[in-house]
Amino acid sequence: MRKFVWFASLFISSAAFAQGPSAAYVGDSIFIHNIAKNVLTSKASYNNLYFLTKKIGGRLAGSPQMVLAEKWGYAALQEAGADNVRLQQCMVPHWVRGGKDKAAVFYKNDKGVQQSIPVNVLALGNSIGSGPKGIKAQVVRVNDFDELEAKKNDLKGKIVFYNVPFDDTLLATFQAYGKNVVYRGIGASRAAKYGAVGVMVRSMTNGVDNAPHTGSLRYLDSTQEIPAVAVGVRDVEKMDTLIDAGKSLTAQLFTYGKMLPDTIGHNVIGELTGTEHPDEIITVGGHLDAWDVTEGATDDGAGIVQTIEILRAFKSLGFRPKHTIRFVLFANEENGTRGAKAYADEAKAQHEKHIFALESDAGGFTPRSFSIPINADTKPKLDAWLPLFAPYFINYFTNGGGGADVGPIHETFKVPAAELMPDTQRYFDVHHSTNDVLENVNMRELKLGAINMAALLYLVDKYGL
Amino acid sequence: MRKFVWFASLFISSAAFAQGPSAAYVGDSIFIHNIAKNVLTSKASYNNLYFLTKKIGGRLAGSPQMVLAEKWGYAALQEAGADNVRLQQCMVPHWVRGGKDKAAVFYKNDKGVQQSIPVNVLALGNSIGSGPKGIKAQVVRVNDFDELEAKKNDLKGKIVFYNVPFDDTLLATFQAYGKNVVYRGIGASRAAKYGAVGVMVRSMTNGVDNAPHTGSLRYLDSTQEIPAVAVGVRDVEKMDTLIDAGKSLTAQLFTYGKMLPDTIGHNVIGELTGTEHPDEIITVGGHLDAWDVTEGATDDGAGIVQTIEILRAFKSLGFRPKHTIRFVLFANEENGTRGAKAYADEAKAQHEKHIFALESDAGGFTPRSFSIPINADTKPKLDAWLPLFAPYFINYFTNGGGGADVGPIHETFKVPAAELMPDTQRYFDVHHSTNDVLENVNMRELKLGAINMAALLYLVDKYGL
Repeated sequence: MRKFVWFASLFISSAAFAQGPSAAYVGDSIFIHNIAKNVLTSKASYNNLYFLTKKIGGRLAGSPQMVLAEKWGYAALQEAGADNVRLQQCMVPHWVRGGKDKAAVFYKNDKGVQQSIPVNVLALGNSIGSGPKGIKAQVVRVNDFDELEAKKNDLKGKIVFYNVPFDDTLLATFQAYGKNVVYRGIGASRAAKYGAVGVMVRSMTNGVDNAPHTGSLRYLDSTQEIPAVAVGVRDVEKMDTLIDAGKSLTAQLFTYGKMLPDTIGHNVIGELTGTEHPDEIITVGGHLDAWDVTEGATDDGAGIVQTIEILRAFKSLGFRPKHTIRFVLFANEENGTRGAKAYADEAKAQHEKHIFALESDAGGFTPRSFSIPINADTKPKLDAWLPLFAPYFINYFTNGGGGADVGPIHETFKVPAAELMPDTQRYFDVHHSTNDVLENVNMRELKLGAINMAALLYLVDKYGL
Repeated sequence: MRKFVWFASLFISSAAFAQGPSAAYVGDSIFIHNIAKNVLTSKASYNNLYFLTKKIGGRLAGSPQMVLAEKWGYAALQEAGADNVRLQQCMVPHWVRGGKDKAAVFYKNDKGVQQSIPVNVLALGNSIGSGPKGIKAQVVRVNDFDELEAKKNDLKGKIVFYNVPFDDTLLATFQAYGKNVVYRGIGASRAAKYGAVGVMVRSMTNGVDNAPHTGSLRYLDSTQEIPAVAVGVRDVEKMDTLIDAGKSLTAQLFTYGKMLPDTIGHNVIGELTGTEHPDEIITVGGHLDAWDVTEGATDDGAGIVQTIEILRAFKSLGFRPKHTIRFVLFANEENGTRGAKAYADEAKAQHEKHIFALESDAGGFTPRSFSIPINADTKPKLDAWLPLFAPYFINYFTNGGGGADVGPIHETFKVPAAELMPDTQRYFDVHHSTNDVLENVNMRELKLGAINMAALLYLVDKYGL
């Protein structure tokens, strides 16, 4: 490895960081530095993520693990020092996988002998199961919805294979996801409309392994409910190669998914009461639920642990905010966002006053930016604050808003919302798959996210946005 | 995971990126974009790193794997399209581990019964072995050299245990390494001076697992050669807890290290000949050697693969540099830097003209910056170029120079040298340990490094620095 020691010099070439924060912010710079030292030397976030991933694991809405996670979250917020902690009830969907998903593909080799290969699949969330008898049908490959439409007269009784590769040239991997996720979301309905009996969807990933990546689908109407699975990309490539070689493929799927009646779930909410404006609320949170097959370490154990860590560090340093800060572990982001809706609905019903909301749901990777509204009002403030974030590797802000969980609060109260934007290159390697485990989270990267979030909350509380 | 799609807006709050590149650089921006597309969609870098890590593996100077790696590197540079490839001979040190390092610690429990615990160790590179009889001696823990000096009269016949924790509060992890590495480097000699018979050094890592992290030591004189091992941090903590509880520890070490006579190694050098100034040379490279217990994926398979990838992409796009670009796979960075010295020595002897040198030896992690000289001459250029790098996540330059392998060229010719600075948070989790494997490299992150390096070479070739 390199032998020189870096950062001996602080002469950095970039107008924004040519100097440190202006004199007015020196005290803030010291406070944020103390937060950083506290977080970087604490074992609390590792211990929390360890428990959430290894002792609880996948915690989809309605599952026994959801109940365990709520109980754990309640205790963790108390332990971190919240002035008060409560459970906020909401009804959540209750989808169960119901069994071990399996699939195989059959074709005739060049000698006319039937061959079969197992295919790595996971039923999509919210999908109906094939049941123990499975479904078996000829495979029709399509590369997009246009091709689906072109082949619509050939789909009756078939299994549609959506083979839409991730666009690896998109530097922002969420853009690639945004382009393709529609096939997972409504591909089943679109195929069922023309009589297809099942769909296989290429996993949404930049990864090169064979882990299938699940995620929710939505049936557009109740006549269009057919089984649907995500397929690992190596097996997708095998299928692709066979089809390219002119083989006719038949696939057999066994899935057992079932949507049970809605059940009771909870947001878990801890507060630090504001010293000057206790009735004005700043929200920070992540989501507590996670897909059943994962440990939910990146999605969104990271956001949960960061939320709790900010509270712990604030308390540990004796910091009291002027406004009330709510630390929210949201229920059911993955297949319903009912927790987020319940939170905003209650806030509206109670005539609460909200001033800002911040979310972390893009993983515990090394921070890059915040997605935050940049406009004539906010820009001077954000520009002045930027040098306070630069030591912790946030070098710019990106005009945008929050994620799914602070969306309803933003919509209801028209308050600015923000989201931590970490580096995204590894996100879709693990997303919604068995790769989403504790070992794929680097705790220093996760902690850097928490430090920057704490800094942003501190600044918005002190100066407004 | 978050549901909104990012980067829909390009309104970024930071003076440096408020606009794209100036009109003069639009063509360059397109060229760099084409490089990025080419690299992001190519499988070459994965295939290269796979072969280097899984088929060759640890390739310390003098080892059979070194010879395989040189042969592979020669072919890989040819395959990537170099105008010419050659081996540049240099004599390299030839240290062998010689066997399986083992250690145990003994103490008496509260009932006076002797207990033993195995301890995870790796002999330090260049160290002498204990031989099959091992050494067994009482342990003296010290937390720094001051404490060593204070205890100097108690060290005769003892094993010194350097327990110097990594400073996790340092955001630049190389700074933490820079503070502690002296204990690995000369701790053995300093202890031997007072009669110690062996040393155990806490591994240099932010990690939380028990993998020992090796690396080279240097005996200050030949009377001070004693066995020396790195210890996994979990076992360090066990030893620490026992000593804190007042236990007297005895340690037993078995190591087999041996320095054999120098042997023949090679730098592997490929060239793209300059169209206008073929006698003016730009160097880019990484180091081909790697510690024996590792796969050398991060250190420095990443730099090697990036170097080859830049050549491949340039050729693939039909790009011809004005100056000759040398793609150098350096020999023996880890325990001698003899390759780097041979390269500079020959350049001097041949009266070559060098204009710039770039290195990658800080891992294949997501890029943050370049360490590069920033002064009155270079600053206007670097500031103008920065918007060309921003889409690929380099948002600032850092005043500095290159690493160990381009150091001698920089010293000899007084030319500017630079090094890719990726994010460093995960580096010391894997460094010099069995954790340094292919699976701990994310190929998109590695490719982003190659893209930025290619852009920098292209710009320096076109505009000078």
